[in-house]
Amino acid sequence: MIGIDWGTSSLRAYRLAADGAVREKRDGADGILTVAEGGFPAVLHRVVGDWLAAGERQVLLCGMVGSRQGWVEAPYLPCPAGPAEIAAQLTRVPFAGADIRLVPGLVTRDAGGVPDVMRGEETKLIGLLAAGVEGQVCLPGTHSKWVRLEAGRITGFGTHMTGEVRAVLLGHSILGRLVQPGESAAAFARGVVRSGQAGGLLHHAFGTRGLGLLGELAESETASYLSGLLIGHEIRAAHRPGEAVHLAAAETLAAPYATALRLLGVAVQEHDPDIVVRGLVEIGRHWA
Amino acid sequence: MIGIDWGTSSLRAYRLAADGAVREKRDGADGILTVAEGGFPAVLHRVVGDWLAAGERQVLLCGMVGSRQGWVEAPYLPCPAGPAEIAAQLTRVPFAGADIRLVPGLVTRDAGGVPDVMRGEETKLIGLLAAGVEGQVCLPGTHSKWVRLEAGRITGFGTHMTGEVRAVLLGHSILGRLVQPGESAAAFARGVVRSGQAGGLLHHAFGTRGLGLLGELAESETASYLSGLLIGHEIRAAHRPGEAVHLAAAETLAAPYATALRLLGVAVQEHDPDIVVRGLVEIGRHWA
Repeated sequence: MIGIDWGTSSLRAYRLAADGAVREKRDGADGILTVAEGGFPAVLHRVVGDWLAAGERQVLLCGMVGSRQGWVEAPYLPCPAGPAEIAAQLTRVPFAGADIRLVPGLVTRDAGGVPDVMRGEETKLIGLLAAGVEGQVCLPGTHSKWVRLEAGRITGFGTHMTGEVRAVLLGHSILGRLVQPGESAAAFARGVVRSGQAGGLLHHAFGTRGLGLLGELAESETASYLSGLLIGHEIRAAHRPGEAVHLAAAETLAAPYATALRLLGVAVQEHDPDIVVRGLVEIGRHWA
Repeated sequence: MIGIDWGTSSLRAYRLAADGAVREKRDGADGILTVAEGGFPAVLHRVVGDWLAAGERQVLLCGMVGSRQGWVEAPYLPCPAGPAEIAAQLTRVPFAGADIRLVPGLVTRDAGGVPDVMRGEETKLIGLLAAGVEGQVCLPGTHSKWVRLEAGRITGFGTHMTGEVRAVLLGHSILGRLVQPGESAAAFARGVVRSGQAGGLLHHAFGTRGLGLLGELAESETASYLSGLLIGHEIRAAHRPGEAVHLAAAETLAAPYATALRLLGVAVQEHDPDIVVRGLVEIGRHWA
């Protein structure tokens, strides 16, 4: 089987053995935003055409390739969902010479009845389930996901747009004016502590400027302080007290979350960020 | 006396009688961002040169004209401060033929020790104090101010960057993609209610997208929903329970705040948004 994690800005293809071992792996920059309308079959041929020619007949795709802006739209599957439910709801992609299917995204509702969605993360989560993970999971990112894994299924999740809010505040708001490049562990920790004080995020964010104007936060510390502030607010809103958190992300993203969680006294278990391949294998196992 | 509220994007000049009555009023688009370095005297001559020629000798300026980007920087005065303290700390501007002085901005610290600043609003607040207002005041805006007025002085305040966060989310984040022009009182109210649910602002903001993707919020309702959500978060964090709120802002800003406050069961008293002139008169009275 071939498994492909096909996202907005990049693509990662795996040629998998029958036992799930990775025979070969390829990275590409052909994220869906770079693919012209109708161009998906040609990109697939370019990236894994030789594997197809060598006899691979099953291709499993996950990620934004299944969104409205992707190849074919794969509907969102409601939670709770495990590998069996997901494998039963794959969306078939018309393609000559191979059986190509898309992993569905997931939809859930929080206690307030408001819907939330994910696409791509579900496959990582199936990988974590296959690795025996249960409980509370955080997948940090532009849109961080906080997820519950229970009894072999994804039972619910919530998205926090922390990374994107940080980017737009630094790039487009008054807070970006007092910023110079730099990283500061101390400023990050100050931001995490600040997130627990009274006043709310909209006030705390402006405080970044007050500190800068009065010379109490260096311009090279501002980005770190704001990260700590936003990640602190995210954790305080999302974390279920008393539970450990399973983290899976690339090191640059996982590190600040692990630091903030530990500052707040939360036990952290970090996992291989490349867990998506295990999810593709697991879903493929139920499909096969 | 001449009083001028000279802000970032506009200017309003008042020619005042000895009893504080407005003899004449002029609006200009010469906000400080439009004034080249060294250009402030020429703009002043163009806007009120005839009043100076007619014998006015005192000019009181408030607003961003006293910031680092303005004519001369006027230091921040610490709270608590009333008209007497402010009038005693005016910053003199070198100018031939008139005595020009700048109203200082104010600085305070919240319970967490983080500094907060205002510049321009202090003059409106002195106007409100002169009108007999005491208690909790909200001045909505790009950077909303929540202020305490006690015993004739401004005793503390907190800034919430609600308006700017709304603008950058709509203009530069993924939330702006599902937006069409439109206003909806019902969607605004939904946002206010949502702000009281679990999950935090970073999660609630992303929920705007979930609702849009699933067809549960029309594109023409999204901006109103987001306004209700952000203003709701601001009020819940800033409002001291049980107290009425004094609101002073132009109608387009005051109306959503009044609506949200009333939805949350808070008594609202609205005030003339042009209260700044009363503050200039009051500070001028202590100066004279």
